[in-house]
Amino acid sequence: MSDKRPTPHIVILGGGFGGLYAAKALKRAEARVTIVDRRNFHLFQPLLYQVATAALNPSDIAYPIRSVVARQENTNVILGEATAIDVDRKIVKLTDSEVAYDYLIVATGATHSYFSHPEWARTAPGLKTIEDALEIRRRVLLAFEAAERETDRDAQLAWLTFVIVGGGPTGVELAGALSEIARQTMLRDFRRINPSSARVILIEGKDRVLPTYPPDLSQKAEAQLRALGVEVITSAMVTGLDVTAVSVAAGDSPAAGPARTPAPTQMTIATRTVLWAAGVQASPLARTIGAPLDRAGRVLVNDDLTLPNHPEVFVIGDLASLKVPVPGVAPAAIQEGVHAARNIERLVRGEKTLPFHYRDKGSLATIGRAAAVADFGRLHVSGFFAWFAWLAVHIFFLIGFRNRVLVILQWAWAYVTYQRGARLITGSDASRDLT
Amino acid sequence: MSDKRPTPHIVILGGGFGGLYAAKALKRAEARVTIVDRRNFHLFQPLLYQVATAALNPSDIAYPIRSVVARQENTNVILGEATAIDVDRKIVKLTDSEVAYDYLIVATGATHSYFSHPEWARTAPGLKTIEDALEIRRRVLLAFEAAERETDRDAQLAWLTFVIVGGGPTGVELAGALSEIARQTMLRDFRRINPSSARVILIEGKDRVLPTYPPDLSQKAEAQLRALGVEVITSAMVTGLDVTAVSVAAGDSPAAGPARTPAPTQMTIATRTVLWAAGVQASPLARTIGAPLDRAGRVLVNDDLTLPNHPEVFVIGDLASLKVPVPGVAPAAIQEGVHAARNIERLVRGEKTLPFHYRDKGSLATIGRAAAVADFGRLHVSGFFAWFAWLAVHIFFLIGFRNRVLVILQWAWAYVTYQRGARLITGSDASRDLT
Repeated sequence: MSDKRPTPHIVILGGGFGGLYAAKALKRAEARVTIVDRRNFHLFQPLLYQVATAALNPSDIAYPIRSVVARQENTNVILGEATAIDVDRKIVKLTDSEVAYDYLIVATGATHSYFSHPEWARTAPGLKTIEDALEIRRRVLLAFEAAERETDRDAQLAWLTFVIVGGGPTGVELAGALSEIARQTMLRDFRRINPSSARVILIEGKDRVLPTYPPDLSQKAEAQLRALGVEVITSAMVTGLDVTAVSVAAGDSPAAGPARTPAPTQMTIATRTVLWAAGVQASPLARTIGAPLDRAGRVLVNDDLTLPNHPEVFVIGDLASLKVPVPGVAPAAIQEGVHAARNIERLVRGEKTLPFHYRDKGSLATIGRAAAVADFGRLHVSGFFAWFAWLAVHIFFLIGFRNRVLVILQWAWAYVTYQRGARLITGSDASRDLT
Repeated sequence: MSDKRPTPHIVILGGGFGGLYAAKALKRAEARVTIVDRRNFHLFQPLLYQVATAALNPSDIAYPIRSVVARQENTNVILGEATAIDVDRKIVKLTDSEVAYDYLIVATGATHSYFSHPEWARTAPGLKTIEDALEIRRRVLLAFEAAERETDRDAQLAWLTFVIVGGGPTGVELAGALSEIARQTMLRDFRRINPSSARVILIEGKDRVLPTYPPDLSQKAEAQLRALGVEVITSAMVTGLDVTAVSVAAGDSPAAGPARTPAPTQMTIATRTVLWAAGVQASPLARTIGAPLDRAGRVLVNDDLTLPNHPEVFVIGDLASLKVPVPGVAPAAIQEGVHAARNIERLVRGEKTLPFHYRDKGSLATIGRAAAVADFGRLHVSGFFAWFAWLAVHIFFLIGFRNRVLVILQWAWAYVTYQRGARLITGSDASRDLT
């Protein structure tokens, strides 16, 4: 416990899944650990869509980073934003100060990408932060209010049309949840409109939803979405987008697979609510490292997760690009975080690092009430059992015991009553945003 | 049930305690009822300080107005802001439309007053809305983060000093909760600062806290505050206020009662967080009615709660000023709401209205963990039993069954662990507001 080596300083940038599990893995390390995050909480992103759809509260899926590591004496937390990394001087620049490191783990993740249309961001919010989720909740709830006040039939229909761009897990979850809100939760609340006449339209560029899943599960997911009343359009690209409509054209990926609803060549959907769930790009911090990046802006790392020529710098999670592709999901980030921590401990002991191997424990995507798909390698499950597995896994991994209990109770309550408790339009006086 | 009279239209402005209970009392009325509110939810304001101090989530104390009256077939809800009332044309003007009424209940309440210093509002937020509460939560949590990052000792102390202006129930509740946060909740979270060294200072202009309570209970409340570590300064007025300090002078109300800590003639407190809990003013809508107002901007009403010369217009809650003063508390607003509803039913039946009499069922103010005071007329209670009564009453009156269960669980959890679950700094990237 007391040799001559000075205690190394390990700095972790980002308190997401990768960063937090790296810090936890360093609990017993003979080192000073500093976590830097621009937010004071860890966000359980897989459940963010539940905040966006008024089922959960922000604090149910977010937990102060300080509390997670409160009993970990060697670990310090700094609220701050890393603006650049100087790998030669071994320094991280924050907005108003600098932090020196001996070992660095960069885990600042990804944000959404509007490809070549950054101007769409205002009209079609994505879902990465608590604020994003509250903004989506606000827009969805306001749309029903605006429809109730609207007297023009076409304008009313536009308010009751919800378009979700992107048919990956987030898009599928949002579409399913929105359809349930319209068909169940809001059923008795309005006098002039029938909320269940709302249209929920999911647009996917590839020829099937959940394109990273096996085709049979994509097909099951689409069937479950349709059963919930969601209109699914595949092989379709969004070509234009403003506050009143979305333009869609036949996508460039030919409908080779089981394309269920080929998009028409060109089509315009009148809508007042567009949600963006298509595409991510790496955190801009990657560009300051001075290492080669891939097309999505992710840092190309060695197979031990280190930066080329910088064995003391590790890049993990959504920010890292490995030779053998790893999916951008929480379990992968967690495995990489733990692996980076172990490799640092090896370096401190003067040992060699080990290469990272992703252990795929399966993928789960939920669609709605008792509807989900699960890919456990050879075993493909859909429907109630997939949903139950999803539930169990997500509750188990929710950080913070209090959150778990509360989330279970809120879900149980919602399941029995079809109600969603967090249906608040906050942010400013709601009535001002109706027009 | 089917005589010749046309169904009257009863419009209720405001979905607070007064308006909502008026609507509920009209459940079986042979009338069309319309509730107009600029927010889509009813807010249980007595627990708002719990959101400001990270113990509860917004949706625990707010419930969609539509859901409350969903099964009440005769009642409609409009999300909109009333900008003026034309009592001669019997019309309410909204931002972008008009609503005609046969009977009107005005229940738009009050907002905070900075007396002759409206410029203090930015520096010292008050506590009336969900956004206010989240802003206070944000500032309090950020102050601890800033203190942790600060290296200058004086600057650190200023971040760890919290000043609450106003020693009424809201100020006392905020002070007690802040002291608990510093001394219990945050205890293990920081490495450089000791959160329990934080100062919480409560400033009251009168010679005792809770000046509307009997003097012996004020004394008990002050003792309980001091036991929690709150510094109480009475008979003191805030004379200046900016982002770094608060100036306090001996108040103009002489320390006639049991003044426990007379203020020095002049004093400046270095602080980065000032919260405002002193004084309210009536909603500006009152000025458009064209009736005489009192000093606080409230409408002077007849003893049956109607406007002079307008027996079809009722003003209730914090907006109404009666000859026999009624306290600005939820039970009073509820009683007035129900009374106005009954009087309208009498008018519809061609009967005379009845005068309103406030039934004082007692007052409760909570201070902290198992600390409170209760005034039940001759019976004055303090400590655990007052706190338990406060708990029971507040949970009982929480609208929405789900909220009650969740609030009980969160309180139970907080009571056992000293933790507060909603410790999130939201609104924007927290790190940007540190400096």
